[in-house]
Amino acid sequence: MREFELLKIVEEIFSKEALDVPAGKHDTAFLRHGSEYLVFTCDTVNELSDFPKFMEPEEFGKMVVGVTLSDLAGSGAKPIVFLSSISMKKADEELFRKIMLGIKEWAERFDIKVAGGDIDFAPILSIAGFAVGSAKKIITRAGAKPGDKLFITAPLGKAQLCLEMLEKGFCREDLPYANKLYTPEPRIKEGLKIAEFANAITDISDSLAISAHLLSKASDVKIVIEPEKIDLSHLTEFVDEEKALELFLYSGGDYELLFTAEESEIGIEIGRIEYGKGVYFGNSKLEFRGYSHF
Amino acid sequence: MREFELLKIVEEIFSKEALDVPAGKHDTAFLRHGSEYLVFTCDTVNELSDFPKFMEPEEFGKMVVGVTLSDLAGSGAKPIVFLSSISMKKADEELFRKIMLGIKEWAERFDIKVAGGDIDFAPILSIAGFAVGSAKKIITRAGAKPGDKLFITAPLGKAQLCLEMLEKGFCREDLPYANKLYTPEPRIKEGLKIAEFANAITDISDSLAISAHLLSKASDVKIVIEPEKIDLSHLTEFVDEEKALELFLYSGGDYELLFTAEESEIGIEIGRIEYGKGVYFGNSKLEFRGYSHF
Repeated sequence: MREFELLKIVEEIFSKEALDVPAGKHDTAFLRHGSEYLVFTCDTVNELSDFPKFMEPEEFGKMVVGVTLSDLAGSGAKPIVFLSSISMKKADEELFRKIMLGIKEWAERFDIKVAGGDIDFAPILSIAGFAVGSAKKIITRAGAKPGDKLFITAPLGKAQLCLEMLEKGFCREDLPYANKLYTPEPRIKEGLKIAEFANAITDISDSLAISAHLLSKASDVKIVIEPEKIDLSHLTEFVDEEKALELFLYSGGDYELLFTAEESEIGIEIGRIEYGKGVYFGNSKLEFRGYSHF
Repeated sequence: MREFELLKIVEEIFSKEALDVPAGKHDTAFLRHGSEYLVFTCDTVNELSDFPKFMEPEEFGKMVVGVTLSDLAGSGAKPIVFLSSISMKKADEELFRKIMLGIKEWAERFDIKVAGGDIDFAPILSIAGFAVGSAKKIITRAGAKPGDKLFITAPLGKAQLCLEMLEKGFCREDLPYANKLYTPEPRIKEGLKIAEFANAITDISDSLAISAHLLSKASDVKIVIEPEKIDLSHLTEFVDEEKALELFLYSGGDYELLFTAEESEIGIEIGRIEYGKGVYFGNSKLEFRGYSHF
């Protein structure tokens, strides 16, 4: 979680920019433009940190679209335009074409236009993704209200479970949730619907714990995750109860959404919002930590 | 110029996206949004390819803003929002702060809001810049008309001259045009004015020769650079006539604009547009090549 210290510097330097939601306040920035808001975000993936074993080049492209658009989903924004800046070791046309085809496929699936980008050379393969979306209103991780319930869009921990199975020597074919690891899908449609009724929203990229802490702090509320509402059956098929809970709370890579609302027909209820500070799992404080992918 | 083969793949895969100017047609993409166009671009700089000896960390930040905004300048667009995705070797707070302060200073100078970005870790320092601008109309490198004159915003070759002096052992203090090399300024104001009357425009990042070839091809015209109009006195103080011409035609890093118009009160006239194909320097064909920075 080394980047959080650096993010404080970003907030310090850029929090006074004339944006409706400036840097550091959310996963994206909002700027009023005409009758709506433009929403901006970027994310980088590289072969050392983000591409699991057995990943295919097309999936490098899908992943950069997926993780970048997840920030738009976590802002209730409709995708408009995607760009990528790719750094490669050499001008490998076949690799490049496959990555671009992966970008195209995932962009079409999530209805965002690809406006090209930049090509550079560097000793490792990395791809920076940039996305612009639009939103009718501002919804961020600030805004949760005491009395709200806490929801997630789907069970968590699947990506990290698969990653750890790979580390233990399993093949891709053996993984129960390979798609979650190799081709995460941004919850764009869900985000658009949730934005209509929720009070706060964010995506879960590093871990439920980290997203909950950021939401709690931004909204100035206490978050209580209720142990009895956590269903771990998607994980306990493969690991013990303790490990399953660890994966659910502290692992990343699922790119689901966390949101608070009075009620929701979407998602799974996992807790409640109260007056106060901090994030609790039942009566215990939840640590601010998450698994990085590698 | 290895990236041009890859750019063909981008054009092949993404040229049918529903944009008003799609990938591969210009330095930026245009998309109608309300009563005007949004203009998108991105560029990456890294310490191996783009940061000359003696460059200061603040200047890394200024450079990524400068080169990214140069594409907006070369599209006659007004800057709106800038984001960056930075990859660092480790969480070096002092280095990071200086880079961010450089981004802030250059963003303020060229009137673009900074909406934050992403932080990642990788074995080399690289910074991807992403900019969104707005434009009242579409102007690109397509549109030059036979009968137009050819203009540049300022004399060329200064950045590469300085880079080669560094390679010969000169210090930063000895360089005649150090600012051109270390802190290139995007020609935003000039681009906005030029867009009002010009028929075609592009920025010069790789070389005059490359920009002229791309403009000639996109506009389906012949470009004749007129040797008698080329003033090399800013270079012949330091190198011989032959080397000076080489720098003027084939070197990059100045980030000036190339444009065609019937007449212009801005810039320096260097040639003319005719019916036909190709790029000529007087009667000789001009090669398609440029110096990369390193």
